[in-house]
Amino acid sequence: MSLYGDYDPQNIFARIIRGEAPCHKVYEDDDVLAFLDAFPQSRGHTLVIPKRATARNLLEIDADTLSKLILVAQRLTGVLIDELQAEGVQVAQFNGAPAGQTVYHLHFHLIPRWSASSLGAHAQNRAEPAELAALAARLVERLQG
Amino acid sequence: MSLYGDYDPQNIFARIIRGEAPCHKVYEDDDVLAFLDAFPQSRGHTLVIPKRATARNLLEIDADTLSKLILVAQRLTGVLIDELQAEGVQVAQFNGAPAGQTVYHLHFHLIPRWSASSLGAHAQNRAEPAELAALAARLVERLQG
Repeated sequence: MSLYGDYDPQNIFARIIRGEAPCHKVYEDDDVLAFLDAFPQSRGHTLVIPKRATARNLLEIDADTLSKLILVAQRLTGVLIDELQAEGVQVAQFNGAPAGQTVYHLHFHLIPRWSASSLGAHAQNRAEPAELAALAARLVERLQG
Repeated sequence: MSLYGDYDPQNIFARIIRGEAPCHKVYEDDDVLAFLDAFPQSRGHTLVIPKRATARNLLEIDADTLSKLILVAQRLTGVLIDELQAEGVQVAQFNGAPAGQTVYHLHFHLIPRWSASSLGAHAQNRAEPAELAALAARLVERLQG
């Protein structure tokens, strides 16, 4: 799949934005949605995506929305550190299949890290929905607190 | 090393910014510097850093500079794809040692990917300076073209 191409309005993130698929929401405003990755590489693995822009990747997003995305990513990175006592956070954004992209709606990964635990494989193991719901509730509360 | 801490003005990126250490520059403006990683994980591996802000990581950078950084990262991602025919680009930003951070001056990695080649280990193999110089010249020309 090329880096330049058509946006598929049936991709899972587009369906989440339209409310056709569920997510464990952490943050939402007019332009940005953040939710827990259903296949987390670590506890608290969060995705930050544009809500209105139909951008497959970094090449296709407008400057204003991109700035808003990275500022939400920054804020949530602090929340993950404070609430989960993460010892590190990897921020990652993949463009194209050879770079590890699997959903073609622009997204930033926020992956909390601890020195004692290694990273899980990408998109391999589905988390328990109840666990994600409890985690999202903690992060939302911390964000609002 | 904690995520919150003192900025060390002798870190290698601070020395590069002050001109005390060399780099293969790709882009520079008043706020942002981009140069080729001397220990690249792939051909064209580029780092984007703030020039004036003494931020150890994402938590410490002001919103305006962060927006400028991600917009330069976006532009250079396009340049790497166009000039090197990269089939993907990984954008990565590591906060804290458990997340893989080795230099405590905020930086975004732009790592071009090709489906035929796997990723090199982080900070393991120094690139040939002549090769980096030639590569930087190509990217600068493409950026200006």
